[in-house]
Parts: sequence; structure tokens; C-alpha cells
Amino acid sequence: MSRKTPVAVLGATGAVGQKFVTLLADHPWFELVAVAASERSAGKKYGDAVHWLDAQPLPRHIAEMPVLPCDPEIPGAIAFSGMDAAVAGPIEQAFAKAGRAVLTNTRTHRMDADVPLLIPEINSDSLALIAGQKKQRGWKGFIVANPNCSTIVLAMALAPLHRAFGVEKVFVATMQATSGAGYPGVPSLDILGNVIPRVDGEEEKIESETRKILAAEFPISVHTNRVAVVDGHTESISVGLAQRVTPAQAAEVIAAFRAPPDIERLPMSPCPPIVVHQAPDRPQPRLDVGLGRGMQVSVGRIRACPILDLRFTALGHNTIRGAAGASVLNAELLVARGVISSP
Amino acid sequence: MSRKTPVAVLGATGAVGQKFVTLLADHPWFELVAVAASERSAGKKYGDAVHWLDAQPLPRHIAEMPVLPCDPEIPGAIAFSGMDAAVAGPIEQAFAKAGRAVLTNTRTHRMDADVPLLIPEINSDSLALIAGQKKQRGWKGFIVANPNCSTIVLAMALAPLHRAFGVEKVFVATMQATSGAGYPGVPSLDILGNVIPRVDGEEEKIESETRKILAAEFPISVHTNRVAVVDGHTESISVGLAQRVTPAQAAEVIAAFRAPPDIERLPMSPCPPIVVHQAPDRPQPRLDVGLGRGMQVSVGRIRACPILDLRFTALGHNTIRGAAGASVLNAELLVARGVISSP
Amino acid sequence: MSRKTPVAVLGATGAVGQKFVTLLADHPWFELVAVAASERSAGKKYGDAVHWLDAQPLPRHIAEMPVLPCDPEIPGAIAFSGMDAAVAGPIEQAFAKAGRAVLTNTRTHRMDADVPLLIPEINSDSLALIAGQKKQRGWKGFIVANPNCSTIVLAMALAPLHRAFGVEKVFVATMQATSGAGYPGVPSLDILGNVIPRVDGEEEKIESETRKILAAEFPISVHTNRVAVVDGHTESISVGLAQRVTPAQAAEVIAAFRAPPDIERLPMSPCPPIVVHQAPDRPQPRLDVGLGRGMQVSVGRIRACPILDLRFTALGHNTIRGAAGASVLNAELLVARGVISSP
Amino acid sequence: MSRKTPVAVLGATGAVGQKFVTLLADHPWFELVAVAASERSAGKKYGDAVHWLDAQPLPRHIAEMPVLPCDPEIPGAIAFSGMDAAVAGPIEQAFAKAGRAVLTNTRTHRMDADVPLLIPEINSDSLALIAGQKKQRGWKGFIVANPNCSTIVLAMALAPLHRAFGVEKVFVATMQATSGAGYPGVPSLDILGNVIPRVDGEEEKIESETRKILAAEFPISVHTNRVAVVDGHTESISVGLAQRVTPAQAAEVIAAFRAPPDIERLPMSPCPPIVVHQAPDRPQPRLDVGLGRGMQVSVGRIRACPILDLRFTALGHNTIRGAAGASVLNAELLVARGVISSP
Repeated sequence: MSRKTPVAVLGATGAVGQKFVTLLADHPWFELVAVAASERSAGKKYGDAVHWLDAQPLPRHIAEMPVLPCDPEIPGAIAFSGMDAAVAGPIEQAFAKAGRAVLTNTRTHRMDADVPLLIPEINSDSLALIAGQKKQRGWKGFIVANPNCSTIVLAMALAPLHRAFGVEKVFVATMQATSGAGYPGVPSLDILGNVIPRVDGEEEKIESETRKILAAEFPISVHTNRVAVVDGHTESISVGLAQRVTPAQAAEVIAAFRAPPDIERLPMSPCPPIVVHQAPDRPQPRLDVGLGRGMQVSVGRIRACPILDLRFTALGHNTIRGAAGASVLNAELLVARGVISSP
Repeated sequence: MSRKTPVAVLGATGAVGQKFVTLLADHPWFELVAVAASERSAGKKYGDAVHWLDAQPLPRHIAEMPVLPCDPEIPGAIAFSGMDAAVAGPIEQAFAKAGRAVLTNTRTHRMDADVPLLIPEINSDSLALIAGQKKQRGWKGFIVANPNCSTIVLAMALAPLHRAFGVEKVFVATMQATSGAGYPGVPSLDILGNVIPRVDGEEEKIESETRKILAAEFPISVHTNRVAVVDGHTESISVGLAQRVTPAQAAEVIAAFRAPPDIERLPMSPCPPIVVHQAPDRPQPRLDVGLGRGMQVSVGRIRACPILDLRFTALGHNTIRGAAGASVLNAELLVARGVISSP
Repeated sequence: MSRKTPVAVLGATGAVGQKFVTLLADHPWFELVAVAASERSAGKKYGDAVHWLDAQPLPRHIAEMPVLPCDPEIPGAIAFSGMDAAVAGPIEQAFAKAGRAVLTNTRTHRMDADVPLLIPEINSDSLALIAGQKKQRGWKGFIVANPNCSTIVLAMALAPLHRAFGVEKVFVATMQATSGAGYPGVPSLDILGNVIPRVDGEEEKIESETRKILAAEFPISVHTNRVAVVDGHTESISVGLAQRVTPAQAAEVIAAFRAPPDIERLPMSPCPPIVVHQAPDRPQPRLDVGLGRGMQVSVGRIRACPILDLRFTALGHNTIRGAAGASVLNAELLVARGVISSP
Repeated sequence: MSRKTPVAVLGATGAVGQKFVTLLADHPWFELVAVAASERSAGKKYGDAVHWLDAQPLPRHIAEMPVLPCDPEIPGAIAFSGMDAAVAGPIEQAFAKAGRAVLTNTRTHRMDADVPLLIPEINSDSLALIAGQKKQRGWKGFIVANPNCSTIVLAMALAPLHRAFGVEKVFVATMQATSGAGYPGVPSLDILGNVIPRVDGEEEKIESETRKILAAEFPISVHTNRVAVVDGHTESISVGLAQRVTPAQAAEVIAAFRAPPDIERLPMSPCPPIVVHQAPDRPQPRLDVGLGRGMQVSVGRIRACPILDLRFTALGHNTIRGAAGASVLNAELLVARGVISSP
């Protein structure tokens, strides 16, 4: 691949948009050619328009880029969308209509029957939906969505168990990081020394999205909680399975989980996708959220559950594995499989 | 009651011991006559021996009290024990043998068949065990235990549901405050911006103690987590019941829960014992942990569970309702019912 | 005083407004008769309009009060203002013109030469400005301001030293709580596990307001910082004095500081106004912010300074002593001195 | 340099010891051949003996290394010491006597007149002390110390100003991370939502060590504070200078500060050593502590001081730049200058 595919970020000043910028700033396959945002920012230099939140400094050449409007006229064969759900729908559709590959982190189209809700390690076959989507909607381009940040952690942890043993019931209590709410997001007065026992709208999303990804109908009971963590969603999970399984067997299956070989070789692809921890008090966000450059999901404390079959803890980086990194990995897969033609 | 019952605190310099001292400093029925601790502290003034942790200042006259050894020779008809489990057993037994009423927060004797594991609002009938305990052990005094801090929150929330509808299965994920681990307890490097997905030994305790308190055999699946909160254990709970119940019916039953009338009038007794919150994001430790001077348990977000019947969030103050306050309330009940004779 | 003075709170849904409501809900001299806020909230019930932030529950009868517009037609002889500085000016002036005593926490009028910037324990003589203010502005009422939250802590700590020894230079580095920024205020992503080395506009305010309160011209060098604390501004202070003074002498003078007798008897007045701590690691916000129901300022670690004369740490509750409580105490003084006629 | 110099870490299980291990695990010049700790750990595998605190996972081959006793018999030409000050003295001396280069982070020998207190960018000429140290003490090896973590941040920020303009007075208030206290270190109950206005023994160290490093006698007034930050010491600093200087001139001098060329090329050497921030609310620990892989010191908010000449904020990573990274950089300098002969 001698030349890079030009890409744009929509909603580039938001929290997820910034993470897209960080991940794309030095990507081996993609070249960031446009940062787009709302009218309020358009026209400014990106470095002036953005309240940069990342510990990795904003590269100078990107800081100098002008913020463009979210208009399909802007350059870029791929449009990564980190826009607010309130405005994303018509804009993403316009980009898709105009022939762009829209890789979106927004919830708007996730549950559309003809939109792949893609986690490459799990359901790359969902890319087959794209042809119908284009035809039915009369678009030259298309939309591929990645799931909600909590869903990805859950779906990744469940996928190997579902394949091997058949998941039948899932109970999950989340402890979600504040970066999942964007910026300014959660006021400090609400979360310092506190737990908020609800993340608005998230329980329904986790239940429906997980079933779509795993192509299954099992019931899921979700309790969402927000905790005073910056990055990393931790989840206490119990699972009922179609077969009796020991914790050791489950651990083995999860640790052995691998993406298809072509996916394993993608630049953002972590290998293995899931790290199984042996220490009795892991995973922990502060220590484990960055594994695999934020792309690995961690699973630990696998043990028997007195009600369902297994219980364990899962953890993932909500703005990398659970948002921007997920979309970039999806785009890599589309390029590798030729759905997006490389330049 | 013209004169107060003299009481001692064992393990008075520890975190729970300090909370005992705070609650007893100005108690209408009890007079703190002795603060006892390990050899290391004995002989010092209490104010010099203790690293005082409470926002309520240590009363001057208690600061001047000498720290006594944990020896049954010390004064006090009641001995409140906040000792480390590692040393508590023989000492508590010696006090009971010597005729004292030992009200213990320590885990050592909680599961003994002849020791009441008492939450006055729920199982005051367990006091009937005391006669047999004294007889069988040949003690002039006796031991009454209160449950683990997480158990009390769970058992309180379950009690009205169990009475009304029959609890059959319980799933609970805890988010526990660091004060539950005592002092120095959880190192700051382990919990700042973090979640620790395990509280050592706690899952088994919650499962067994809850069943003992509710005199039931249903399975309980517990996931414990430690979060960056100072006071207040939050719990995500799902419950399976013997009857179909709507969330509104459950809320009504929980809100209507009351202690027996003689217990409701005890000085530490909160009324109602459980506060049912209507706001969609409550209860929260920072806002609700102090309700009823730390003695009320909060329940909120009561809704249907896709797997069991109901799901909701519960919260309680782990060092008051869940530890020292629980023991003091237990002692009040013993005095009110004449098990401890008032002076 | 057989009847209570009717009072209104302007900006009642904001963070400071809520604290006014809490302090006035059960005040012995004042009766809260009106809660007023912006057009957005006006017309709703207060309980529906407000995102209640306080651990002390909102009293039910106040939750039922209608939110009124910030219009001088609303009842109340005293108007406590917790409005945003962006809108406060004309509204406060209209209330003062209409004969109301406006007790404001807003910065707008603080530095006006004819507006008392009042801390009762320090400069109650500044009330003499009111007559001229009314005359010159042609108002039937008047405005009295309290200082910025950081300034009150500093000015309180300096006042006894200034009286006894003459303050000549002040260096202060603040570590300010997030509640000082109101709600939603500081985003959690900015402050979790972090320090922000600047509180916008605050350094100038601390310098100018402190000089106005102490009627002095000494230079003050301020470094402001925001830290991950909910309530309580901590300040590292060095002071140059006109006389050589030992730390022990300074401690004695600060501990002996008292308000004039008529002020000491006011309901909100803490006695003593300043608590001098002996422990080498105090004051601390978590332990000391609530002293004197949040109205006492704490001073500790008084020791020699290698550059100026003394160095020490001061702490005060920023939304009580430093905001709403300050205004209520000011109002009490105005009633006690007959500037506001009681009903 | 075809072969690497063999090195040992003393106190390898402690917090600083672990950071040494992380930095040496993949060092281009050094090979970690021994991890040594107290009797309690000696004999175990390092991975079993250590409670690993770092987000960077412990490399497997190091986890398998046996923990050795802190005895000069163990291999390694260089001994990096992260031992407790309580035990470090005699052990470090024994290693030095036995011919080892002891690079210590411990305070024990820092102020010894014949021990270099080395920051390579500032006082590499202090290496000249080594010859006398060996001769006078009759040692085949020697000790080189790095300063206290807070001192390094301060000394780095002052060094360019001192060279260019002559520092005459320094006022500094620190806001120090909890990792500076090691593990278990600061109990979470002491720091969650809190500020502790004192770091035990640190004020004297900062004052004396800074003067030794800058070979100056100016007075320094230090206020230490502990805040709820994991990594990164933030310091509010005011400086009096021998010349009038504008903030812009100071910024230019600090930004232009460079190590001598041979030092600039060392593997751990950051370039530039100090980053000058323009944003009005920087530096911040969460965003800036990792600059230069934790080796760059950040300076921001340079502005005039009403009492001294300049005021600004400085920040540095306390366990990398301020501890283990400092020692490793010192060792690199010793190798580069031939004081330690490479193999």
C-alpha cells in the first residue's frame, strides 16, 4: 500500500473526535485530511477550536488545520463520525449518499437492520449488509457503526463463551468512566467521591446492541453506574450457558479467542483480543486499561456463579476500544477486505 | 431511665472503634466509661493514641481518657467490639464469660449457630438464641453480632420483599467505600481513579450472612468492587421472587416497611428504616449516605429485571448503619427488651 | 423578635442559591418567602426546577414553592443574591432601588466604593457606607456584598495578625474546591486525579478584595489552583509583618480573635471565628471544613517563614463561610443593628 | 557499546524500585541482572514478591528473576537504590566500599559534602566530588545521589533563571502526588476528596537540596501539600531575581535551556529539559506529566509577582524525573563520561 487513504473526522472537536485525531495522526494506512465540526468551530484553526483533552499532545500540523463544516464537499474517502447523536443522522446520511464510507461511533444508525454493527473479531460477516444498504437507500457510499462503549466490552467478553458454550442469560453491572460522557460531560460535583447509579439511555443500548452483535436473543439485565474513573469501563458479569462449564474451561476458551487471520494483522488489531488475568484483584482500570494500546479487553476473576453459570469481571478502554479505536479498526477491515478501495 | 448504662469500646483506636466513640459520646442511654485497645496503645491518653478520622471532632473529655487493655477487668456492662478479627475471638469470649454483653462488629462469631446475627428491624426474634448460648457455653454474659457492612444494606433492602413476596434468587454487584477497609486500609495508589474488582473475603460473607438473617436458603451471587468513595456502599441488585410483582408494588412494600413499635422508638432507630427514592439517578453516596443520621438505607431505580423479577439500587452508610451504628442499635434493643438490665 | 423577616433568594436554582435555601429553610430570624431564578425556571415548582446538590435534603414545603422571576415585585424585605455575575448587576440595582436590602454573593458591586464588602467579624464599620450609597444612588434600599470565597478565608486569617502586628506582604497559594465553580462548573475530566493551576479571574479578586476588607494597601501575590475536593478552600499563606513575631505569639493572637459582642451573638456567627489547629497535618478539608457548621475558618501549621515572617495553612468552607453563609451572617448583622427593620 | 553494563536494583519491590525495573527492563546501555530486596522477599520470584503498581506490565523474564538479598555479593556494576531511608545507609556504603557505583534515590547521603547531588542538566561538574569521596572513605566504588522528587521539579525550573538572572528568593507551595509516598504510602481515607497540608520532612529537604544543587545560598520558603493525584508534583513558585526581568524574557530563557551536548544525547535525556506552556491553565498533571516519557519538567503561567519578581507553575513526574528516571539518567552520564567503565 504505497499511498494512504484520505480520511476526515466529523465532530472533530468533541471528546471522541479528539481520540480519532490522536489515533489517525500517525496511522500507517490513513491520512487525516479534514477535521470537521459544527458551525461554531468551522473556520477556526483546529488547535484554537478544540479544548484538547488528551495526554498525548496535539500534533502541530493538525493544530494548524482549518476546521471545516460537516459537509460532504470536504475531502476524505472515509468519514469517521464522533458527532453528537442529536445532529449526526442527516449528516452521516449525506456523506454516505455522496459516496463516502461513514464509520460512525454515534448511536443513530446502530440498530438499523441494514447497517453493520461491527466488531471485527466477532461479526465481520455483517459487512455483507453493505451491498443491500447501498442498493436499498440508493447511496454510493455506506454507513458502518461500532457499538456503544459498554457494549463492546461486554460483547467481546461474551463472544468466545457464546461460540463455545452458548450464552443464554447475562447479568451485568457496569462501573463506567466519565470520559464516556464526553466533554464537558459529567460535572465534577456529581462524581467526586460518588457513584451515580444510572447512565442515561445506556441500559437499553447495551441490551439491544449486544444481541445484534452476537446474533442472539438471550435476555440481558443491565445495571449501569458511573464512577470516578477517567478511562475504562469495568463490568461485573454473570453468564448462564447452554452447557456446564468450569471456570478453568471458560478461561481457556476466552484466552484462546482470536480474530480471523486477516483481521489479526490489521494495524489497530490487538492480539490476543482479550487478556485473561490470573491475579485475584484484576482487571483494574488504572493498571489494565492501556493494554494493547487500549484495544485489548481484560477479563479476570472467572469463577462459578451460584445463580447462573459463571461470573467474572471485564474491562475495556471506553474511548479507544469502545469508541474511536473501534471505528478505526472497522475502517482497516473495510480497506483490507476491499470494501473501501485503497488509493 | 435515670442513670446511663456504662459501656466500653474494644478496639477503640481503629476506624470502627472511633465511630463507636462518636456515636456513644453523647448517647442518651449509654455512658462511655472505657476505651480499650491493643498493648501498643494501652496506657496512653486516647487522644494521643488515636489517629482521629472523623469530621466530627473527638470530644475533649474522651481524648483525656486513658486507653485500657482489652481485659474483662475494665468497667462497662456492655462491650462494643470493633477489634480486628485476627485477635477478637478469645477476647470477646473472655468478656462474655465474665458477664458482659458483647456487641460485636467483628466477623468471628457471626455465623455461630447460637449467636444472634441481629438487625433489629428484621430478626429481633434471634435474641432468643442468647439463653441457649449462655447455658451451652457456661457464660454469664453473651455475644450478639451485627452483619458485615455490605450485608446490612442488602438484607435491609431484601427484608420487606422477602416478607411480602418471597425472595428466591439474588444477584448483587457492590461498589464499596474505602472506609469499609478500616485505617490505613486501602492504599490511595490502589483506588484513586480506579476500581478494584474484589473485596477480600466479602462475597462469601454477604452470601452466608444474608441467608442467616433472613432465615432463608435462596442462592445469592455477589460481585464485590471497591470504588473511590469514602463512606457509603452502593449495590446493584436483581431479585427473583416467588410472586409476580410490579416495580410500583415493590416500591410500596419497601417504603411501608417498619420496625416493630418498640424498636422504632429506640434512639438510633431510623424511621422509616428504608427511604425509597423517585429520582432516576438516586441513591448516590455523596447525597444520600447521611440520611437518618447514617442509619437509613436508601433504595432507588426499582424497575423490572429481564432475567429475575426486579432490579434496583441500594445504598447504606457502611460505618454507621453497616458497623458501629448497627451495634449500638442492637444494644439499645437489648436494653429495651430487658436482656441487658439498665442500672 | 416575634415575627420573622421575609426574605427572597435570587438565583435560587444555582449552587450558591441552593445553599441559601438550605441555610434559610429553618432560620430563626428569616422566613423564605420567595425563590427566584431565570426565565427558564420561572413558573415551575422549585423542586422540579432545581438539580438539588446538597446532602441535606430539600425541605418539602420549599420544593413546592413556585419559582418566581427575578423582579422587584416579588415579596421579601431582603433579597439574597446568588445570581450569575453576567446578569446580576441590573437586577440587584432594581431590587435596591425598590427598597430591598440586597445581600449579594456576586462580584459585580464588591469593589464599588460605596458598597460595603462586609465580613462582620472584621469590618462591620463598613456599614456606614450604606447611607451614602442610598443617597447618592437615590435608592430606597441598598446593596451589601460579601467577598469571594477564597478572599474570606484569607481575610479572616489575616485580620487578627493585621490588627496586632500590621500585615505588610502576603503570599498565598490556593487549593480550591470544585463547588466554588458552581454547577455544572468544573467538568470531571478536568479535575479527576488532577490539579488545574488557575481559577479564572480569581487572583485579581483576592488581591483587591482583601485590601478593601482590611482597609490596607499591602501587596498580595496569589497563585490559584483547583483541586479534586468538593467543599473547602485550602490556602498556603506566608505573611510579612511590621513587627517580629513568634509563631506562638501569632497563634495566640489568632486563637483569641473574637467578633464584637453583638456580632458574636448572631445566629450564624461562629465562636471563635477561627480555630487554631495544633496537629502538624491540619487543617484538612475532609476533616475540618464543617467546623462551626461551616462558618469557622481553620488555621494550622503556623511556623516561621524564611522569606517573610510567618507561614501557615488556612481553610474555610467555600459555599458556607465563603458564600451563602457569609451573606446570611451579613443580613443578621443588618437586622441586629437596625439597618434592616425587623417586622 | 557492544555489551551492556550489568546493573542491580536495591529495594526492587518498593514503588521506586519497581519504576527502576520498568525503566531498566529495556534499556539500551544497561542490563538488569539482579533485583534485591529485604529478607522478607529474598528467595521468592520477583513476580511473586512484588505488588506490581505500574500500568506497564512487568516483563515476564523479570518476574521470573529470584529476589536476592541486598548484599554486595550480588552481581551488577551499578546498584540503583530505591531502599527505605531507614535501612539504606549501611547497605549503600557496603556496596560502594565493594566497588559498585551506587546511584541512590534515598535521602541518606544527599547532603554529604562529598556526595554529588546530581541533576545532569544543571550540575554535572559535581561529579568531580567522586574522586575525593573514594579517597577519603577508602572506597573502591562511590555514591551519587539524586534529589528529592519535589526538589528536582523546583531546581529544574530555577536553574535557567538562576544562571541568567541570579535567583535571590524563592517561595514555593507544592501539591504532591501520592505516589511520592511509596506503597502502601498514603491511606485512601486521608486523601480522597482531601488535601493534606504537610509532607513529612519534605520542606527542609527541598530547601537544603535546592541550594546544594544550585550552589547558592538564597532563602527558600516551602509549603508542602499532598493532593489526590497519582503521579505528578505541581508547584506554585514565586522567585525574586537579581535583575528586573519580564515574564516574556523569563519564558524565553527557560525554553532555551539545554543540557550540555553530551548529556543531551543520553538515552533518558529529554530535549528540551523544560517545556514552557502557553495555555493559561497549564501545566496539569493529568495532561502533562508524561511529556518526554516523564523526564521533561513543565513550566507555565509565567507572570509578574507583586512581591517577588516572577510567579509561575512547574510540574514534573515525581517517580520518573523525580526518582528512578533521575538515577538512571545520572548513571548514563557516569558511563558517558567514563566514570563507570562500560564493559
